[in-house]
Amino acid sequence: MKKINLREKLTRFQDHWNPRIVAALNGQHVKLVKMKGEFVWHAHREEDELFLVLDGALTIETPSGDIRLEAGEFCVIPHGVEHRPVAENEAHVLLLEPDSTRNTGIAGGDKTVETPEWI
Amino acid sequence: MKKINLREKLTRFQDHWNPRIVAALNGQHVKLVKMKGEFVWHAHREEDELFLVLDGALTIETPSGDIRLEAGEFCVIPHGVEHRPVAENEAHVLLLEPDSTRNTGIAGGDKTVETPEWI
Repeated sequence: MKKINLREKLTRFQDHWNPRIVAALNGQHVKLVKMKGEFVWHAHREEDELFLVLDGALTIETPSGDIRLEAGEFCVIPHGVEHRPVAENEAHVLLLEPDSTRNTGIAGGDKTVETPEWI
Repeated sequence: MKKINLREKLTRFQDHWNPRIVAALNGQHVKLVKMKGEFVWHAHREEDELFLVLDGALTIETPSGDIRLEAGEFCVIPHGVEHRPVAENEAHVLLLEPDSTRNTGIAGGDKTVETPEWI
């Protein structure tokens, strides 16, 4: 039951597309990730995924249109929906998703982080 | 899959201790609540609860000590742990918890909101 400061946690890593776990509850993980550039198109078989932008701006491309998120905005991508996060400039993002969630979903590939680090 | 702006949602209600639902995913609800004053001591039988302060400051009293949260800080209160939120001045808080969660937990009482409103 310790206090977690989002800005302090964000100073602990600099790399992109490598989510870190900061909390666990009810079978879910709260993660922080820095995004820059284009991620891979992917979907999650069973996991809904929440993206909350803390700093910067993020576009989540989907087959039914783009979702543009700025700081203080979030959206939920339901399981099964293909999506691709794109950040022209670095964006800091809070993710909420089941602890079973793999960052690249069923697509896999070289951006996959099989076991995210706790920070 | 629509974008949700936290500040815009917070303009939609003014009352205290009455959480509103803004999103659902993986059996969880994301809620917003305005807090001012002292809530009731309570615990949740099965639900872990995350408190993220968006504006202002919040103290969560627990039997093992107080947790002081300011904007950008959060903590998780595990199920079964007695707690009481207290906000000297108005605080705006994002809650993440299972959709079965009642605000007053097993304590009940006149601050109970049985069916939170979606906004």
